[in-house]
Amino acid sequence: MAASALPEPDFKLAAQLFDMLAQKTHDTVGITRASYGEGEQFAHDLIAQTGRAAGLATTTDAGGNLYVTLKGHDQEKGIFLIASHLDSVPQGGNFDGAAGVIAGIAILTAWKRTGFVPAGDVAVLAIRAEESTWFPYSYVGSKAALGLLPKFALEIPRADTGRTLAQHMTELGFDPAAVRRGEALFRPNQLRGYVELHIEQGPVLTGRDIPLALVTGIRGSFRYRNARVLGEYGHSGAVPREYRHDAVVAAADFVTRLNSEWERLEHEGHDLTVTIGKLFTDPTQHAFSKIAGEVSICIDVRSHSKPTLAVVKTLVNALAAEIAKKYGAKFELGPLTGSEPAEMDRDLLDRFTSSAANLKIPHIQMASGAGHDAAVYASAGVPAAMIFVRNQNGSHNPDEAMRLEDFELAVRVLAHGVAGLS
Amino acid sequence: MAASALPEPDFKLAAQLFDMLAQKTHDTVGITRASYGEGEQFAHDLIAQTGRAAGLATTTDAGGNLYVTLKGHDQEKGIFLIASHLDSVPQGGNFDGAAGVIAGIAILTAWKRTGFVPAGDVAVLAIRAEESTWFPYSYVGSKAALGLLPKFALEIPRADTGRTLAQHMTELGFDPAAVRRGEALFRPNQLRGYVELHIEQGPVLTGRDIPLALVTGIRGSFRYRNARVLGEYGHSGAVPREYRHDAVVAAADFVTRLNSEWERLEHEGHDLTVTIGKLFTDPTQHAFSKIAGEVSICIDVRSHSKPTLAVVKTLVNALAAEIAKKYGAKFELGPLTGSEPAEMDRDLLDRFTSSAANLKIPHIQMASGAGHDAAVYASAGVPAAMIFVRNQNGSHNPDEAMRLEDFELAVRVLAHGVAGLS
Repeated sequence: MAASALPEPDFKLAAQLFDMLAQKTHDTVGITRASYGEGEQFAHDLIAQTGRAAGLATTTDAGGNLYVTLKGHDQEKGIFLIASHLDSVPQGGNFDGAAGVIAGIAILTAWKRTGFVPAGDVAVLAIRAEESTWFPYSYVGSKAALGLLPKFALEIPRADTGRTLAQHMTELGFDPAAVRRGEALFRPNQLRGYVELHIEQGPVLTGRDIPLALVTGIRGSFRYRNARVLGEYGHSGAVPREYRHDAVVAAADFVTRLNSEWERLEHEGHDLTVTIGKLFTDPTQHAFSKIAGEVSICIDVRSHSKPTLAVVKTLVNALAAEIAKKYGAKFELGPLTGSEPAEMDRDLLDRFTSSAANLKIPHIQMASGAGHDAAVYASAGVPAAMIFVRNQNGSHNPDEAMRLEDFELAVRVLAHGVAGLS
Repeated sequence: MAASALPEPDFKLAAQLFDMLAQKTHDTVGITRASYGEGEQFAHDLIAQTGRAAGLATTTDAGGNLYVTLKGHDQEKGIFLIASHLDSVPQGGNFDGAAGVIAGIAILTAWKRTGFVPAGDVAVLAIRAEESTWFPYSYVGSKAALGLLPKFALEIPRADTGRTLAQHMTELGFDPAAVRRGEALFRPNQLRGYVELHIEQGPVLTGRDIPLALVTGIRGSFRYRNARVLGEYGHSGAVPREYRHDAVVAAADFVTRLNSEWERLEHEGHDLTVTIGKLFTDPTQHAFSKIAGEVSICIDVRSHSKPTLAVVKTLVNALAAEIAKKYGAKFELGPLTGSEPAEMDRDLLDRFTSSAANLKIPHIQMASGAGHDAAVYASAGVPAAMIFVRNQNGSHNPDEAMRLEDFELAVRVLAHGVAGLS
């Protein structure tokens, strides 16, 4: 489809929606839209009202996810979702999540008003509870939408209120019993595809001075969240080097070696991040005049390649064993958790990449390091894609800042790609 | 003096005194003799009674330090002190400190009973408040004994009671006003010398299977107790390696490099210990999925050589600058504290080394990594020496264990050396 034939998305409406969200969900220094809380509900109400005012159909599923739908020529093709979440972390930013929903609304309201009818149905899906700081479980809303939320998740208490997910759903008029039974408005085979526009949560686009990226895959991970290095406490002055089993030195050597291995693997072309976010001597035992006998660390390794994750897991274990031996220390890596990498759909990736090229908008392809609801749909067999928008100052903080001109470029690419579905 | 001519120290008495101390100052899992507290006072009373019962003169100074004196042939020679402290850390061991006082009592009581008269006066000095866990200030008792305790130290509250040092002195009948005025029973020029027998607080003698050591010097130190490495927080999955300013990686690199430098300097013959006893990400900010933006560390460097301390201080600062640059991070080393190394007296070191050789007792010379009251006397210009006794399981813990047969060898060396003073 030629870009000129497509109605311009309603960017004025988009700017108004961002402003209203920021005003109503501002919380001292940032934005707070708690999952199944006041801020998230305000955002859902705002999007539903806006959709209805534009003449679009709105539906809410048992878990409270909102669909705003524009009918296409052929209902048999299945629904194509333009989706994202509307909750935020506590005192976070205005764009993480909401940008993807507002992008969809800006497109569908313009299409409805100008009479542009897509080949099949297109719906904006506003997802609940993506930020796992509230209910410490990943992808509550999108799993509920697909009827895939495990029963135990309904009993998870919200971090701030202590009330369960089921209680919070009930309070807002939803139907946790139906969620528990695995009911879904749309099964994967009724969905034609899924696309999520989201701010990039890292600095890559800002660093390269590129407004947007097409996402190749969402990294999976393995994690040792509670690893420990055990050495031997001793007097800092009285114990010579050769008698030491210093947990700090062993842990530092481990971190340094692992970081070098990351550098090597990256040069060999592996997609990878390796992070030791927490590293600490025991606050009840450590002292400036005491050789440390214990260090706690957590290890977070991400890649969109399963084989790479396997290689690094073997490496972490081998390094731990080697360094334990070197220092007469002990490594207890503890429980292993993680998630599978999710590949984005090759056809959709090509489609949106072509859209950007046709519109002459600078773009790159990159993997997503952070997790997104798109991973849930991809894992369920729905062809999924993501578009990242350049974003200043990272995300999950009040300084998060997306420029509207970058957003507009990304929404044009999004609209062009979705409109082109035949 | 031939060993055979010297009366055997009273080791039976020594064993009884260790037993009585252990019984009366036992505290659930270990030994507690608080500075200016019940356990320490019990120990002082026990030593004073034992001395008086043997016919020795006892005196207590304004700060509560106890002298148990055997007159020599010539009072003009000045007093030679066999000294150590009687307090302990909370739930520590029975030997750290007390061994040196009991050693002196075992010698002087035997000399008194057998009519052995040394050339000059010899006194056992039982020192107060050496363990700075109680009053967080070093060498309270020995500084008070020399009239060198700064006035402010009298206002320091004891960690457990909250009452000041002056209050505790008053409660036990001592004279904090005289201590404040800098009064002293004996000035450095009235002292002929000082020797302290102490358990080794490290594993060197146990490791080398040697019962005792003659101490060459007491290590001085420099310390950055509150250093920080400042990087930048970021999403563990979304921020690629080249955009990171990871405080954990920078701190680990620093520790690893500093440890390598220590190894190099040690091979070049430097006396040195380097310890990072505390290293921790910020518990209010760190998360397994967050690149760490801040790490706190403390750096404790000890050597008996001032030039070595200066070399390592320069090295620490240069490494911090280099690593800060490498990672785009910042090092704030913070306030610098430390202590001067104290050289032990060369003549006394030779004397006690000769004693050990003459008695055919295996021995080595080594530096003391931990601080001791001997450093105060050495700094005040009193010729000072130390003898270390092999000790199992380190010190400052309930498992501290000195074998009485090792103690006896060390006391023989001590007696032989002191008796030989002409």
